[in-house]
Amino acid sequence: MNGLGDSVKTRVKAIYRSLKQPVDAIVLSNSTDPHIDLSFFYATGMTDGLFEGCTAWLFPDGRCEIVTSALEEEAAKKSGLPLHVFRNRDERLAAMRALVRGRRRIGINASELTYKAFTELKKLAPKARFTDVSEAIVNARLVKDESEVELLRMACGIASRSFEQILPFIRAGRREEEVAAELVYTMQKNGATGAAFRTIVGAGPNSAEPHYTAGPREIRKGDLIVIDFGALYHMYHSDVTRTVVVGEASPEQREMYDTVRRAQDAAMTKLRPGIKGKSVDAAARKLIDGTKYKGRFIHGLGHSIGLATHDGGGLNSVSDIVLKPGMVFTNEPGVYIPGFGGVRIEDDVLVTKGGPEILSTASRDLITVG
Amino acid sequence: MNGLGDSVKTRVKAIYRSLKQPVDAIVLSNSTDPHIDLSFFYATGMTDGLFEGCTAWLFPDGRCEIVTSALEEEAAKKSGLPLHVFRNRDERLAAMRALVRGRRRIGINASELTYKAFTELKKLAPKARFTDVSEAIVNARLVKDESEVELLRMACGIASRSFEQILPFIRAGRREEEVAAELVYTMQKNGATGAAFRTIVGAGPNSAEPHYTAGPREIRKGDLIVIDFGALYHMYHSDVTRTVVVGEASPEQREMYDTVRRAQDAAMTKLRPGIKGKSVDAAARKLIDGTKYKGRFIHGLGHSIGLATHDGGGLNSVSDIVLKPGMVFTNEPGVYIPGFGGVRIEDDVLVTKGGPEILSTASRDLITVG
Repeated sequence: MNGLGDSVKTRVKAIYRSLKQPVDAIVLSNSTDPHIDLSFFYATGMTDGLFEGCTAWLFPDGRCEIVTSALEEEAAKKSGLPLHVFRNRDERLAAMRALVRGRRRIGINASELTYKAFTELKKLAPKARFTDVSEAIVNARLVKDESEVELLRMACGIASRSFEQILPFIRAGRREEEVAAELVYTMQKNGATGAAFRTIVGAGPNSAEPHYTAGPREIRKGDLIVIDFGALYHMYHSDVTRTVVVGEASPEQREMYDTVRRAQDAAMTKLRPGIKGKSVDAAARKLIDGTKYKGRFIHGLGHSIGLATHDGGGLNSVSDIVLKPGMVFTNEPGVYIPGFGGVRIEDDVLVTKGGPEILSTASRDLITVG
Repeated sequence: MNGLGDSVKTRVKAIYRSLKQPVDAIVLSNSTDPHIDLSFFYATGMTDGLFEGCTAWLFPDGRCEIVTSALEEEAAKKSGLPLHVFRNRDERLAAMRALVRGRRRIGINASELTYKAFTELKKLAPKARFTDVSEAIVNARLVKDESEVELLRMACGIASRSFEQILPFIRAGRREEEVAAELVYTMQKNGATGAAFRTIVGAGPNSAEPHYTAGPREIRKGDLIVIDFGALYHMYHSDVTRTVVVGEASPEQREMYDTVRRAQDAAMTKLRPGIKGKSVDAAARKLIDGTKYKGRFIHGLGHSIGLATHDGGGLNSVSDIVLKPGMVFTNEPGVYIPGFGGVRIEDDVLVTKGGPEILSTASRDLITVG
């Protein structure tokens, strides 16, 4: 894990380049789980550990220093970054006070910092001016570097492979939650750190609810099943959806699937540098709204993935984000017919100079199970 | 899920009773996952859903109202509470503005509120005075009511049962991470919503690191294995540790186990109303420090569990918390010998008028596997 130093420097500089007004230091401050600033991991390059109460200090020249608890010292060493180790509250505050000294303009990540942690910083530097630099951080995090793409590729590969492995498990009589458990277990056996989020397995009418999770409903012949899942691989999240049908698909089910598939393809061709987020969304939406499923695509097309499942930018009807090489988005159109069922197809796509590269490798054809 | 109303009223009133200075309203504001205020779920009584961008409004008379996105409306209805449903950002702000109107003193939960969400509130009520009421919230959350105890009992039961079921799976040649995956899978099959936290399986020398997780190390004959795991059951966390030995235990391993077991028993008798947290910790620490393992118990004795794995109060050498009926703590002494191995025994204990009630039902005797 050495040699992280260069990539950290590039990341810190990317944040500073995106700033609207200059600051003398940026501090990323973790509170208690789950109130952890994921940008702490982006800026330090670390991809393991919890680092409660720890802070990362980013300077305009690209340097990054970590104030870490003794508990996490071994993990922090892997970053190769300068460490300030504390054993108790006083040592922690002393280390932070030393780092803040003489800095007048301090950047904070307001969207991931608790108000309590902010109050603490303010006490340490009562004369400093604090600026919210969360937008610059989001902008930097949107464009993945090589090591981040590699982690996402692993997360996508594990999720895709695991899904294909559990297909024989999905059949009439199984409960939705059993399928979810089997899929998570298989991802873990295939090397995932865990599930990226709570797995959705919605069968029959439940497939028509985009935000359903998984329940005791038994799978039946004729069901559409929406399975939305992701692997966590060293803190990086994949997010994939496949819709399968139990037994032979009805003409209606085939038509729904085919429509969503064509909408996804239409959006896929737009996932290129220079295109605006809303144009990508529009390509899929226009296709669906030109069919009998008009108005049935009731959510945005996609979102950036990375250290979070929703990592900042979105692809939706109001998105002004301009795509750049290195961005990774989900492309996930769907149609939902309450009481009948839904179809969603979701892939994770890397924007490259040469066009879209699909990182999630599972087949996108309609799969029949059971 | 109806009839939640009464318990919500009691919870809201418990928070107001703990306040040091009066406020006209308390707002609990969720940002984007993982920056969700768990107290939102405590105050509304809901135990499912994500509720990104949603807020709960608590009033001195015990009323609670929810500003929810249309996406979560169905889930929010289960609370039986008054809802203000928004479809977009403007509707969201309008609903919040109406609720804040005329209220001068507003309580916030500074330890779970992002700075950005605070800035938003401040803009909505520029003349209001904001007070951090996080201490009152923690105090209320520390004492569990009947329905919370029931959820914790389920979470503890599932974890305990699942551990006992996977014992035959643990044997020489298995990797630590395989055991972790098997345990999580079994908890899910037994009805857990998920794992409460990342499962620890530390074998051999890894068992001596209290904050290890699980890796590719293969289990060997003679290993001590520390297994620290918990089930999530509808948002409530159990947290249990068992230490097993592969093959016959050596005299040293037995002595370590016996010492930790006696330390846990000593602390257990102190888990009664009126006792201070530090006295409970001291009981276990004194026992260990009176043996050859003096100084080897390198962490606090325990912590409150509930909606978070670390739910507020702790049992450690500086804890001034006074135990009350309804509080639930882990009791988890350990001894760790670097390079050799560690032993930790952790149970979840409900403080009742009649004394401690152990919610985690797995046997506390030294178990031999493999």
